[in-house]
This record gives sequence, structure tokens and C-alpha cells, in this order.
Amino acid sequence: MAATARAAAAASSLAASSVGADCTGCRQQRTLPTFTGFRVSKHKAQASPQKLQRPSVKVRAAMDDKKAGSKRDIKAEASAVELSSAVAADVKNGARSEESIKDVARNKAAHDVKEVFRAKYVPFTPGVATTEEYSLDEVLYRSKNGSLLDVQHDMEALKKYDGQYWKNLFDSRIGRTEWPYGSGVWSKKEWILPEIDNDDIVSMFEGNSNLFWAERFGKETLGMSDLWVKQCGNSHTGSFKDLGMTVLVSQVNRMIKKGRAVRAVGCASTGDTSAALSAYCAAAGIPAIVFLPADKISIAQLVQPIANGALVLSIDTDFDGCMRLIREVTAELPIYLANSLNSLRLEGQKTAAIEICQQFNWVVPDWVIVPGGNLGNIYAFYKGFQMCKDLGVIDRMPRLVCAQAANANPLYRAYKAGWDKFAPIKAAPTFASAIQIGDPVSIDRAIYALTNSDGIVEEATEEELMDAAAQADRTGMFNCPHTGVALAALIKLRNKGVIGPNDRTVVVSTAHGLKFTQSKVAYHSNEIADVTSRFANPPVTVPENFGKVMDVLRRELDKRGDKIK
Amino acid sequence: MAATARAAAAASSLAASSVGADCTGCRQQRTLPTFTGFRVSKHKAQASPQKLQRPSVKVRAAMDDKKAGSKRDIKAEASAVELSSAVAADVKNGARSEESIKDVARNKAAHDVKEVFRAKYVPFTPGVATTEEYSLDEVLYRSKNGSLLDVQHDMEALKKYDGQYWKNLFDSRIGRTEWPYGSGVWSKKEWILPEIDNDDIVSMFEGNSNLFWAERFGKETLGMSDLWVKQCGNSHTGSFKDLGMTVLVSQVNRMIKKGRAVRAVGCASTGDTSAALSAYCAAAGIPAIVFLPADKISIAQLVQPIANGALVLSIDTDFDGCMRLIREVTAELPIYLANSLNSLRLEGQKTAAIEICQQFNWVVPDWVIVPGGNLGNIYAFYKGFQMCKDLGVIDRMPRLVCAQAANANPLYRAYKAGWDKFAPIKAAPTFASAIQIGDPVSIDRAIYALTNSDGIVEEATEEELMDAAAQADRTGMFNCPHTGVALAALIKLRNKGVIGPNDRTVVVSTAHGLKFTQSKVAYHSNEIADVTSRFANPPVTVPENFGKVMDVLRRELDKRGDKIK
Repeated sequence: MAATARAAAAASSLAASSVGADCTGCRQQRTLPTFTGFRVSKHKAQASPQKLQRPSVKVRAAMDDKKAGSKRDIKAEASAVELSSAVAADVKNGARSEESIKDVARNKAAHDVKEVFRAKYVPFTPGVATTEEYSLDEVLYRSKNGSLLDVQHDMEALKKYDGQYWKNLFDSRIGRTEWPYGSGVWSKKEWILPEIDNDDIVSMFEGNSNLFWAERFGKETLGMSDLWVKQCGNSHTGSFKDLGMTVLVSQVNRMIKKGRAVRAVGCASTGDTSAALSAYCAAAGIPAIVFLPADKISIAQLVQPIANGALVLSIDTDFDGCMRLIREVTAELPIYLANSLNSLRLEGQKTAAIEICQQFNWVVPDWVIVPGGNLGNIYAFYKGFQMCKDLGVIDRMPRLVCAQAANANPLYRAYKAGWDKFAPIKAAPTFASAIQIGDPVSIDRAIYALTNSDGIVEEATEEELMDAAAQADRTGMFNCPHTGVALAALIKLRNKGVIGPNDRTVVVSTAHGLKFTQSKVAYHSNEIADVTSRFANPPVTVPENFGKVMDVLRRELDKRGDKIK
Repeated sequence: MAATARAAAAASSLAASSVGADCTGCRQQRTLPTFTGFRVSKHKAQASPQKLQRPSVKVRAAMDDKKAGSKRDIKAEASAVELSSAVAADVKNGARSEESIKDVARNKAAHDVKEVFRAKYVPFTPGVATTEEYSLDEVLYRSKNGSLLDVQHDMEALKKYDGQYWKNLFDSRIGRTEWPYGSGVWSKKEWILPEIDNDDIVSMFEGNSNLFWAERFGKETLGMSDLWVKQCGNSHTGSFKDLGMTVLVSQVNRMIKKGRAVRAVGCASTGDTSAALSAYCAAAGIPAIVFLPADKISIAQLVQPIANGALVLSIDTDFDGCMRLIREVTAELPIYLANSLNSLRLEGQKTAAIEICQQFNWVVPDWVIVPGGNLGNIYAFYKGFQMCKDLGVIDRMPRLVCAQAANANPLYRAYKAGWDKFAPIKAAPTFASAIQIGDPVSIDRAIYALTNSDGIVEEATEEELMDAAAQADRTGMFNCPHTGVALAALIKLRNKGVIGPNDRTVVVSTAHGLKFTQSKVAYHSNEIADVTSRFANPPVTVPENFGKVMDVLRRELDKRGDKIK
């Protein structure tokens, strides 16, 4: 590969790491990771990959550090600029090597000090002291007494760096292809899985999803000036699940390399989870196993796992039968279970929250609306924002809204009852099929997230969610039904005056509409029982006749061209 | 909205513009756009929106300018840092206003000098001198003598700034939400439609698509260390067409606002073009019209235009009849035709090439492989890279490969004949339906692009393209058939030794696989005539029996777990 990526890798690495540990001449300088432009120049003569192709990163960093009150010398910038010219020439010569971007990252890491950040599993029991903890290298889904697990970071270590440091570091990684920071998840690696070797990461540069201003829907439908949609489904496998799955599969990959007995990763999902699992296992070369009830799922629904080479078992039973079998099987065979309570996945999902802050130049929005079923994602968003706040990257929390389908609304009911008690329900079918869950596994996580963010729960009927999706589609979106739930919640909260006209509000779109075209076809064909399809827009049939076509066009343009006179 | 976006807008604006024209005190300074940190501080006292929230942008810019050899004063950085603290406090206070991000951009623009960059239509007749030229504000599809048009930029004006200036400017806009630079297309506005008012731009922050390292496919299938896939279809409407359509619809929006008689935008496409057109028209509130043959298209194929509120006319004729009718109709009614020869669209599409350079830290790859049908896109890539080279942003051109389906290969035939002569053919059906074109409208553009980039044309049979897509899917991708054509071309060129093991190679994926699941289902069901489906991976049927399930798992894991012992 060209020298560029190597140099770029080194540049960013410098931002996060201290002087090379192998450099005996300056061991006394082996302090904390800092932006150390002036130190680099000392090491210029070494045959080290720590060359600097993007001096601006470091210069920026040095200047920003200065602004943030830390003590940097202007010399740092000067020498960095000097060095950069030399390397720029090197890059220009385009020296080609057989190194892959992973080789570059590995070579570089050999010169870094060991990571100082740590993370571990602890039971998710907020407010209850416990000494129970586990290494992330253990195959573990629940605590001793059966509670959920949480990935807990060494916040004291992370807090040794101020908010400006983290902002500079994360900003220096945007929009590039350096391994692994080209990923929106791994560009926040220190906050996700700090101890994983870059070599073990399985990434297709997920994340970095579009956050766009929903101008027309905001203004015309809601009278809002500052409405945004975070397109998490505009992604590799078409849903936000990629964010969590890159973390889970990376950690599994690490465990396998460490000699843990894991031969495959399995799940019993028909939807976005199996697609994301299969894609990331395929990228890693780790077998993925998907258990499914025979004759209940079409091959079209399964085409992603099948295309990604997963072992798809079509079993002559129902979903419960599949779940039971996969649990029995994983007790016998070393198959890691990519189930929905997995706390590693939430670490990846929380990067969507961090990314929103970053895209708004580290200013937190007022509201963030997230569809909720199994309720891991609302906690992931909470955790992302809270981590930003704890580490000085933002100065307040947004208010979180969890939006549920009325047909699967156990959290909404608990919220309405003042969080007094939660009772599972039997969920009725909903077009928002991925959140059709009556007994959500992450209920405790969700209640914790919402009560700590002055949060709200809202619900949407089938008609409300399909109408909201269709109404927003008319302004240029292409929403999946889950996003429809979030949009319907927004409409309600806006109409009630809870969300103000100038509140900066982010609706989280969790999947691409292309994954849910059938429900859209049904809506626009006016074929859904008990739904009026107010915004249906069926094709107009016309004979092959110029006059007739002109008549239709004139009539329709008069109806539609309100903006154009 | 919060003060942030305003400030951020101002910060980036400063990077691209000179001192406010309204500031009479310093008219003598109204020179070229520069990074003018020190001037800003003079204007601090004004009630101007030119506040600076991201000093680092400017500091960076100033430092980078310095590195690039231009003359900036270190004072610039100091005063910028000073200013930034004040504004940072302002931002922290979170002053809320009713301004939208467009308002912010508009207010800011009032303080900028008028743009100095220009673009116009000229006939696409390379090497032939002509004085024929047209304003981009004219409704025009072809030149006087019927040749294609080209958007020609005032390169002399653009060349007043060196490559480092443009790199800094474009880098300062990455990963943010400032209007309109949150878009991957409009972040290159000066090179696209420099004269359009930010207010008139219709954008959903398209572009900024993932460029990821295809590690496993590269290594295991091709022995390549530096293979990348540019996911242009990982986008708002699921194809690269968004890139061009935001430009076309923005220009139409501008013309309407200027009083041009345009009442709608029309096309006669069933595929990605109608989806993108409908989405952008919906975002603008401009009627979109789609003409289609009745009974030949299912509502599922049309669900994007329908959802986006387009007027879909289902006409009792065939495709040729639709084309004829839409031409007749547009002669009578002021409907702008979003046809495939439109040169505005290519301006947007060329940003994918610029973005690739930027993602590789402004180092050009060795090879770029683009699927080709109507052949506008291969020219757009050429134009993007050439513009980067002409403006000093990259130092050489990549070699371009145009990949055609063997069933629709007129360019391949011309290439094989030494470019001697081109003859249209009747294209046979191909799974790569968007490039099933026998008489490509942009043939002259494509030949020009390829002969000027030491380019190659390769072809792929139906089996080759479906196999290539499926083989790559097994390493974690989810390729559409057009990407399959590009991948098949890569495999052939790699096997022939044309593309080397360490060549940095980018395959352009033009649509999301989710738009083409039917062909994948057919492949994995082994239902395609004359295609062996070598990489098919159908589900395995198992009875609900623990022992049987275990048997299947053990057998399959032994087969698949080559990586895991």
C-alpha cells in the first residue's frame, strides 16, 4: 500500500499515545498519552513507522490543547510543521509496500506504550455496591444471580484527559480510512473496548451515518426549525445493529485468538440481528449460525444471512422451539450466543449518541427519540451521552424519548403508571416487527436510562406509525416502520407542546426503509385493515393518449404545485 | 437553534470567504478568499453572525497554509484562539433562536463577498474550439448541434488557490452538520455549482459514503493487500444517483425561484433514477413525474417514487411509448427532464472521486473500477479525479476500469477494437438491470475518460457477475449485481496480472444490495438458468430433534471452521 495510510496511521496514533516504549533514550517521558508534537521530532531519525503525514492533526491538537488550558509549547507546532514537509515528500514519492493497513497499525502499536484504559463486566445493578466483576474475555451473558451485565470503563483513567482532548482525538479520526478508526465505532475505541488489539477488530467501517436536517417535514408538518434524522439504518446491513455487532464479533475474534473454545456465533433471529451477525462473522471468517422455524420464513427474509454464508438451520418447529434448541445446543457446543441481552453490543450502539454530539460540533441536542422494543438501544444512547458528559465532552444530557408501538408497549404502560411497577405483556403484531416485544430483556436498563435523563415514553398505533412514516416520506425520507413509531411520537409530543418549535430534536432512524418495502406497498395500495392510508399515493392509470396524459398532468400539477405558481 | 451551528457555519464560511462586503472600513482588504483569522478579530464588535465556534478549523487552516508555503502570521492563530474562547462561552450558554441552519447560512452569506467562481455549459467536444456557451440557469439538455453538454468551471479562478487550500477547506467540512457542507456533494460546492445560493440547495446530506477495506475478499480470494469498496449505494435512496440528483434538483429549485417556468421534473425510469428524483423533489416541494408502462412494473418496484409523493403515471404502452409521450408532453408543459444525458448530475457524481481521494488523505489510488451502462458515471469519476489533479490536490490520475455486463457491452467491444469505432448493440437482459443499455448516451464522454486515464474496459457474463457478487458477499458484503460486474472485472484483471497484489484498488459499489434481493434469492435458490450458483448457500432443513441438530452443526462446523481449530 502507499505510504500514506502508514503515515496517516502514525499521525493519528500519536494523538492518542505517548512516546514509543522502545525508545530507551527517553523513558522518563513515558507519561500519559498526550499530543506530543515536539517529541516526535526527536525520534525522526529512527526507523520507526511513527512518521507524520497529517501534521495538521497534531498542530490542531496542540493548538486546541492550548485553548483548553493545557500547557503546550508553540515549538511543538513548528517542529510538527517541519516534520510534515519531509513526510509529505515521502508520501508524494508513493513508496509502495506489501503492508496492509492492519500491518501498519500493528507496527505502529509496537512503538506505543501499553494502553492505560480498561473495561470489565459488572452486574447491572445501579446503586447496589458489588465486587463482582469479570474480564471481557470471558464467555458470559449474565451475572451470578442472573442480572444483566454492563461493560464498565475505568472512568478515572479516562478522566485524566479533559473533554477537549477527547474531542480533538475523535475529530482527528473523522472521514479517513486509517485502521481501525475509519469506523465510526472504533474511532471511539478508547471508550468502547480499550484493550482489544487493532489486529483483532472486525470492522467494515460501520457508523459515521448521516445526520440530516429534516427541513420540510420540520417546518411544514411540525413548525420546527431544528429537526434532524440520524440515519443509523443507512448502513452496511441496513440497520443500526452493525454498530453493536462489530464489537461483539471483534471480541469473539479476540477470544478465539486467545485460545478460548468458541467455534461459532449463533442467534435465533429472522431480522436485522441475524443479518448483522452474519455479515460480521463473514468478514472475520468465523462461522455464524442462524436457527429458524421452517416454513415460517421466506428465503427473501433470509437472504442476508444466506448471502453472507451463515449456516441457516430451518427447523421443523416454532420460534420458541428454535430458542430452546439453540440454548440446549450452546450448552454442548462452544457456540457464542449473540443474544439481545449481550452488553458488548450496547458498547457499539452507544457510539451513535457520541457521533450525534460530534456531528453537532459537540453540542448536545435537546431531544433524542429512539424506537424501543427489547430496550437495549435506549440504554445504549443514554450510556453514550452520559459518557460524553462524564468526560467533559458535553455539558448536559439530552432528554430521551423512547417510542413504542401501541401493540407492544410494556414500557409505555410502566411509564404511565409512574414507573411504579413493570409487567410484561403479550405483544400484538405490529408493522414495526423488530420491536414487537412484550417482555423486553433490557427493561431495567431502559428505566434507569429514562429516569436519569428526564425521559419520556410515547406510543404509536399502527395507523399513527404508518401515517407518520408516509407523511415524512413525502418530504423525501424513506422510513421503516420503527422510524415511523419515533416520528409518530415526535408528532404527538410536538402537538402537546412538550417539544418546542425551536428545540433541537433528533429522531433516530434504526433501519433503512428498503428493508421494509412490503409494508409500504400495503400502505400505498390501501390494503391494511383498520388503516385509512391518509397519505397513500397510488399510481394514476392513463391510456396511451397525448390529450389524456396532458389532462392528468394539468390536473395533478394544479393540485401538487402549491409551491410553484 | 443553538448558537453552535451558527458559529460553526461562520467558522467554515471564513475558511472560504473574504472579509464581509458590508464592512466598509476594510474594503481595501476585499481580495481573494483566504483563511483570515486575524481579520475576523477586527470584526468582533459587529453584530455579525461571523462568530467563530471552531477556532481549530481556522487555526488548522492557518498552520496548514503556513506549511504549504503561503504567508500567514502566527498572530492569526493567536487571535483566533482568543476569539474562540469568547464564543465557546457563548455556545455554552446555549442561546436559542428561531434561526434554522439555512437562516444562519443566509445571514452569513450577506457578509461575504460575492463568489468569485463560475461555471457554465459548453458543448462536450474535447479538442474542438468553440465559443458556444450557456448559463446554467437555462433549461438545456444538448448543444446547438445536438452534442452533449459539459459543465465547465472557471479553472483559472479556482487555480488562484493551491491544492493545500482546497484540501484544508474540504477537510474542515467533514463530519459536521453545517448547511450545506454536511453534504458530501456540497462540501465541494466551489467545484460543483459555485454560484448557487445556499438557500436554494436541496440536500439531505448525501455522499460521505463508506470506503472500507475489503480485507478478507482481497487476501483470500485475490491475494491483495489493499482492496477497497466505495459504498456509494449505502445512501439515502440506496444508489449513487443521490449524488447527481441533489445537484439537478437544486439547480431546478434555483431556476424556479428566479422565475423560470418550470412546474415539475420528470423522468421515464423504473429504477434508481426515479427513486432519487422523487426523493429530492419531495425534499424541495417540487412535483416529480414518473412515466411508466402499465402492467410491466409492480408497485414494489415503484414504492420509492410512490412513497416520496411523485406523480406516477401508469400508461397503457411500453417503455418506448413512455419516452415518446414524456418528450411530447415536455414540449408543451414546462417540465424539466431529468434524463440520463443531464450534465448537472455528473457534477454531483464526480464528488465520489474527490471523496475517495479525501478519504485516503488526498493520495490517489492506483485503480478505480466503475460499472458502466449509460456511461455517465465513468466520465463523472474521470472528471472528479482530473479536477483534483488540475487543482493540485492529487499528483497523478488513477487508472480507470469500466466494467460492463457481457450482455450489454458496446463499450467493451469498442475498446477491444482499439477504440476504432463504436457501434450500438441491442442489449440482452442482465441482472445488472441498471446498466442494460446497448446505445449509451455518454459514449463520447466515456471514451474520452478512458483514453485519458490509461483506462481499461472489462466485461462479465451473468454467471461471472452473480458469482463474484456472491463470493464477495461471503466475506461480509451484500453486493448488488452491478457491483458484481465490477468485482468480476477485478477478479479477471487480477488473474491476468494487470492489477498487482499491492495495488491500491477501489471497487465502486453503485447500489445497496437491499435493492436487488430478488436476484440474490434466485441465485441462492439455484433457480437461474445457465448459472451454476457455485456459491449458493441454501438453508439446511432439520427436524426438531436435538441429536439431529447437533449432527448437522458438527458436520457443518467442521466444513466451515477452517479458521477455527
